[in-house]
Amino acid sequence: MNTIRTTDLSQYIGARVRLHGWLHNLRQMGGVSFLVLRDGYGTAQVVSENETDLAPLTNLPLESVIILEGDVVHTPQAPGGVELHRPHVTVITSNSEAPPVAIHKKEIKAGLPTLLDHAVIANRHPQRRAVFRLAAGVMAGFRTTLNNLGFTEIQTPKMVASATESGANVFKLDYFGRPAYLAQSPQFYKQIMVGVFERVYEVGPVFRAEPHDTSRHVNEYVSLDVEFGFIENHFTVMALLCDVIAGIFATLSQQHTAELTLLHANIPTIPAEIPHIHFAAAQELILQLHGVDVRGEPDLSPQDERWLGEWAQQEHGSDFLFVAGYPMGKRPFYTHPDPANPAYSNSFDLLFRGTELVTGGQRLHLYSDYLAALDKAGLPAEPFAAYLEAFRYGMPPHGGFAIGLERLLMQLLGLPNLRLATLFPRDMQRLAP
Amino acid sequence: MNTIRTTDLSQYIGARVRLHGWLHNLRQMGGVSFLVLRDGYGTAQVVSENETDLAPLTNLPLESVIILEGDVVHTPQAPGGVELHRPHVTVITSNSEAPPVAIHKKEIKAGLPTLLDHAVIANRHPQRRAVFRLAAGVMAGFRTTLNNLGFTEIQTPKMVASATESGANVFKLDYFGRPAYLAQSPQFYKQIMVGVFERVYEVGPVFRAEPHDTSRHVNEYVSLDVEFGFIENHFTVMALLCDVIAGIFATLSQQHTAELTLLHANIPTIPAEIPHIHFAAAQELILQLHGVDVRGEPDLSPQDERWLGEWAQQEHGSDFLFVAGYPMGKRPFYTHPDPANPAYSNSFDLLFRGTELVTGGQRLHLYSDYLAALDKAGLPAEPFAAYLEAFRYGMPPHGGFAIGLERLLMQLLGLPNLRLATLFPRDMQRLAP
Repeated sequence: MNTIRTTDLSQYIGARVRLHGWLHNLRQMGGVSFLVLRDGYGTAQVVSENETDLAPLTNLPLESVIILEGDVVHTPQAPGGVELHRPHVTVITSNSEAPPVAIHKKEIKAGLPTLLDHAVIANRHPQRRAVFRLAAGVMAGFRTTLNNLGFTEIQTPKMVASATESGANVFKLDYFGRPAYLAQSPQFYKQIMVGVFERVYEVGPVFRAEPHDTSRHVNEYVSLDVEFGFIENHFTVMALLCDVIAGIFATLSQQHTAELTLLHANIPTIPAEIPHIHFAAAQELILQLHGVDVRGEPDLSPQDERWLGEWAQQEHGSDFLFVAGYPMGKRPFYTHPDPANPAYSNSFDLLFRGTELVTGGQRLHLYSDYLAALDKAGLPAEPFAAYLEAFRYGMPPHGGFAIGLERLLMQLLGLPNLRLATLFPRDMQRLAP
Repeated sequence: MNTIRTTDLSQYIGARVRLHGWLHNLRQMGGVSFLVLRDGYGTAQVVSENETDLAPLTNLPLESVIILEGDVVHTPQAPGGVELHRPHVTVITSNSEAPPVAIHKKEIKAGLPTLLDHAVIANRHPQRRAVFRLAAGVMAGFRTTLNNLGFTEIQTPKMVASATESGANVFKLDYFGRPAYLAQSPQFYKQIMVGVFERVYEVGPVFRAEPHDTSRHVNEYVSLDVEFGFIENHFTVMALLCDVIAGIFATLSQQHTAELTLLHANIPTIPAEIPHIHFAAAQELILQLHGVDVRGEPDLSPQDERWLGEWAQQEHGSDFLFVAGYPMGKRPFYTHPDPANPAYSNSFDLLFRGTELVTGGQRLHLYSDYLAALDKAGLPAEPFAAYLEAFRYGMPPHGGFAIGLERLLMQLLGLPNLRLATLFPRDMQRLAP
């Protein structure tokens, strides 16, 4: 008898099958035992009125590992419409104590610190692990969409000789006796690689030593990075981003219905073109609609973003809004200015449900522009020598963006804290598990 | 007119098309100009007898960025059977000097230090970039094979509170004033995640502070990690590895013929079952065939591996050989011993063309076994508390392996140095580019 997955049970009605997994729950109700087995994919309910059937489970703590054989019975009122009868149980790993966090209830009750302290076990909860299976779906949808558009996946170094964008907020390490840093982003390398492949993407960890202590920041996260050449301006980048977001959500809708249902998640529809508004017009709109004058501010506040999100919903029926043309002052030195108004940039943020999800834009591509931009930013050229070599020897107009994997999940699932979208989060207080 | 890729030219014979890319080469021969344009995918040859056609390129250094329109002509003797006539050229980015490493020749002539110092430009060479496009193919084949077998992709933290396997050879960093380390492997996290998803994989960077200075080692590389539960023993793991290697090579054969041809690479056939030999039998074989007595040595030397590779080729016609049952002494504490002979382990190496490519095996899964193993290794349990929690609350028999992406490419392509299979290598001397 081959072992099958719990999620395939409905294909075996009338048959006797073998499952393996964890003792997820066991209850007695009026002489009837209800056992729930959890495997890596789902759960299965087992019903028995015969005490000896489940005798091997007597006093066995939850989360012990078992093999179970049983008859698959169509039962409309059972979860999934299927249950198992006439069980035969073998214990594989017998635990000696109950788990430190109760994961057998439908909703997990533990508070955030407990969930994070015991993430090793808490992530086994069906709702918790659904978040991380969706993370896999986001990565898969991201790659599939880009592969189909001729992008090449790259893996760039994370230990670097100098800070990516500035000296601040980088983790410093000891590299055989000399200083090195953890890459804050693959920004420089993905641009360099446009010179090789034209169109590249990377999925990998980025490291930010920001002393933030908010629900929206962690110090290590997974960045979905894109960069490509031969663009017209940042609108070319925004059009690609629209396709990528649509591709990610299509993958989730097609391949992860079970997880989305379990998490009560609602996949937004992506308009063929996501509405966009210029940064200056957005500030005008906030004054007009809310009477708050933010004109002249160099960036949008979280409240500004929420207001704009509401407006996009009301005006365009869209969960998404591009804000384009941020002032140059707040953007990194490699940002391409707006040729028509150089105080503003050819860069954008994508707001999703009123929160910044993606930052992107067109980059400088001329060597002389880089030398001038570094000089203007008061940065020496020498630490950027390798990066600058790409521009010295021919780069096309190019741009790109970076999506924070955990941020996307948090917004999509309405999670109250980014840490709940992170497998094993790192923050100022937390380096383990 | 839409811009097309050089690799699609043969679909446009008789049409006028637009290409974009880099000025890869330009030669004059007896009044005829031969221009080679390189885009992110391939190259195209342009032939012109009319001097004014290519006038915009006068004195323009190679690697400048251009747009080119031309008529597509079927020309059997041209590279790819196609060339462009009646070119019209527009210069997008005009360089001021020639590249620091000549990348327009068929074979790149520069020595290793120059190639690495100028990797930003050298990686544009068609043969160099083919290596890295194959890297993308390896990752894609790895993921596709595992997705089809019910594996879930994970991304685990790279900044960790304690060294993965021992205190040695880890990079230390400053984490908000306290020490942290870069993960030497996702070993602990992938095992933990077997408790969540049963079957997991990860593609990501690993960091080794080994003071090696050899052609086979770098200090940061990409590890293709797999771990899965409910195995019988290490032979279950070896069978999966065989499928994964076959899946990777199938992807390369199907999707990367151009790159394989360019690099004169020869994809090995994977036998339905890769031959295997026990560690002790391998040592006996070496004595028998080569008169060298290595019995009692706790590991195989590179020479031993080469001899065994030759034997596998002669005896089994196989580029691959599993050596199983390494002595426990040289394996990490989580290694499962051979129940029949506890001096040996349920672990293996996979040799590919006489060099170790993959290490894997069955792991301990019982909490009590972990406590005993740590004690035996003289390691305190406390730094491993989070890891041990997984075993305390129920883990099935499980195992896995890790493939070094760059090692696989080096062996497959017959490259003389691992650095040539690494986009931007990190070694004791090199932190840039």
